[in-house]
Amino acid sequence: MSETAWIKRYIMPLVSAEGADGLRDDVAILSTPGTMIVNVDMLIEGIHFLEADPIDTVGQKLVRVNVSDILAKGALPHEALLSIAWPRGWVEADFADLIAGLDRDFKTYGIALIGGDTVGTEGPLSLSLTLTGVCIGAGPVRRGSGRPGQALHVSGAIGWGHVGLEAALAERDPSAAQKYRVPMTGDAKTAHLVAEFATASMDISDGLLIDASNLAATSACGLEIDLDLVPFAVPSDDLEALLDQCTGGDDYQVLMAVPDGTVVPGFTRIGRLTDELGLRLFHKGRDVNPPVTLGFEH
Amino acid sequence: MSETAWIKRYIMPLVSAEGADGLRDDVAILSTPGTMIVNVDMLIEGIHFLEADPIDTVGQKLVRVNVSDILAKGALPHEALLSIAWPRGWVEADFADLIAGLDRDFKTYGIALIGGDTVGTEGPLSLSLTLTGVCIGAGPVRRGSGRPGQALHVSGAIGWGHVGLEAALAERDPSAAQKYRVPMTGDAKTAHLVAEFATASMDISDGLLIDASNLAATSACGLEIDLDLVPFAVPSDDLEALLDQCTGGDDYQVLMAVPDGTVVPGFTRIGRLTDELGLRLFHKGRDVNPPVTLGFEH
Repeated sequence: MSETAWIKRYIMPLVSAEGADGLRDDVAILSTPGTMIVNVDMLIEGIHFLEADPIDTVGQKLVRVNVSDILAKGALPHEALLSIAWPRGWVEADFADLIAGLDRDFKTYGIALIGGDTVGTEGPLSLSLTLTGVCIGAGPVRRGSGRPGQALHVSGAIGWGHVGLEAALAERDPSAAQKYRVPMTGDAKTAHLVAEFATASMDISDGLLIDASNLAATSACGLEIDLDLVPFAVPSDDLEALLDQCTGGDDYQVLMAVPDGTVVPGFTRIGRLTDELGLRLFHKGRDVNPPVTLGFEH
Repeated sequence: MSETAWIKRYIMPLVSAEGADGLRDDVAILSTPGTMIVNVDMLIEGIHFLEADPIDTVGQKLVRVNVSDILAKGALPHEALLSIAWPRGWVEADFADLIAGLDRDFKTYGIALIGGDTVGTEGPLSLSLTLTGVCIGAGPVRRGSGRPGQALHVSGAIGWGHVGLEAALAERDPSAAQKYRVPMTGDAKTAHLVAEFATASMDISDGLLIDASNLAATSACGLEIDLDLVPFAVPSDDLEALLDQCTGGDDYQVLMAVPDGTVVPGFTRIGRLTDELGLRLFHKGRDVNPPVTLGFEH
């Protein structure tokens, strides 16, 4: 690859923010229109995506895993820096497709690419995106500010990460597989709802049960989740099938605590924070044992 | 590796900035005490550092390649986000050493670590650092704002990147090899001098001749460099030895254009920007042909 030529051909056309100075410099000026937050997430081939995944979907996923964190804090995605370690010998057409996927979702979420670094590697494709966000309220909604008695809500559906990965691995149900490759996230409206209503919030990336347990623990609370209330991707009578969906990760929906009784459009109440530490799980009106593994453990 | 345990043990103790919220959240609040710039650079094992390099020096190099860009813009390093793709099976002691090296230079340059992502990889160690900087003046000093007749100055010495790499490869002269592994950069004083005097500026990372040519071209100028004025790491009568040192890259010094006649402490005048495009090189008072390769081409 010729790093400079490829950057000029594929990446420069994406760059219009004034502070990026057309990528002619080593640094970009960050625009700071309010309280700024920042997040970075990496995707590594074979770990976070499948070798067989179309590479434009990998670009979209890279954007979405970062966007998901920003939206869940009650903030709007703003500016991005992109690091690419590109495997030696991979062809230019794949690079073009990766960038096309990134560009698609930079546009979807209104993100300005302002800088980055592209290098060669003898290893797997490795991507890192740094994304800033502008807080809608005074600051980001944190994980640790929930209180006992508050309701737990989720956006969208839970389980497409798990169901879609199974479909992708089995090479069946392309529509489900696509939801693993290009996860559905919230949008600007979701972020506004978080900023307006949430007392504590985070995105669901490692699995509903482990992420909700983390939010509760950081808030020094316990929690109850009623599986009969969870908006599952694939509803089922089978408890195991439901537990797979709420421990499988890669959902990229928002989990938030709100004052009890709050109705939030597009969100579903699934349980509440409690005084007693730990997770209580209900299914068909009965207490069930939480699974040993609550989600993806890093 | 247990990502969470290692982050807790090695990385959390480094994090004290309020906006990082003790790494308990997915995002950090960026502090924005002035005009903010940002830069990201990756280091990949086998490409940007040698497998045999002590891993704490790799951590220091990661900080310094980024710091160098910020200082050269007349800005002070501020906050960092760190992405680590850690090879499966590598031991915890190496991780601890990497972080110790990073911490050493975060302290050297007054950088607050505010977030990041650590993941496993089947490939080589891959590191990406996003670094913000606070501009001392109204904004960053750009590359493209030089004018014909202005003098070109460099900080420090030129050539330690090349001389040190040769030493490291040959396993001789540990003191020179160390200057390849842990490149010498400027400091806060350097950034203040850039902000005060430079009309155009950049760091020297790919080789003096190619970087100076880039600064001149971006400024729509040509340039003259007098090798007899360049502060070489290893002075020599041999033109080839000098050309190796000013095309070898990895120097991480500052190159800047200043009004003709300006004396800048710690900087050396090495030539000037001209009306006529292209590079003219002088050695022992005579015009010499520039080498075909002016530095590291991406």
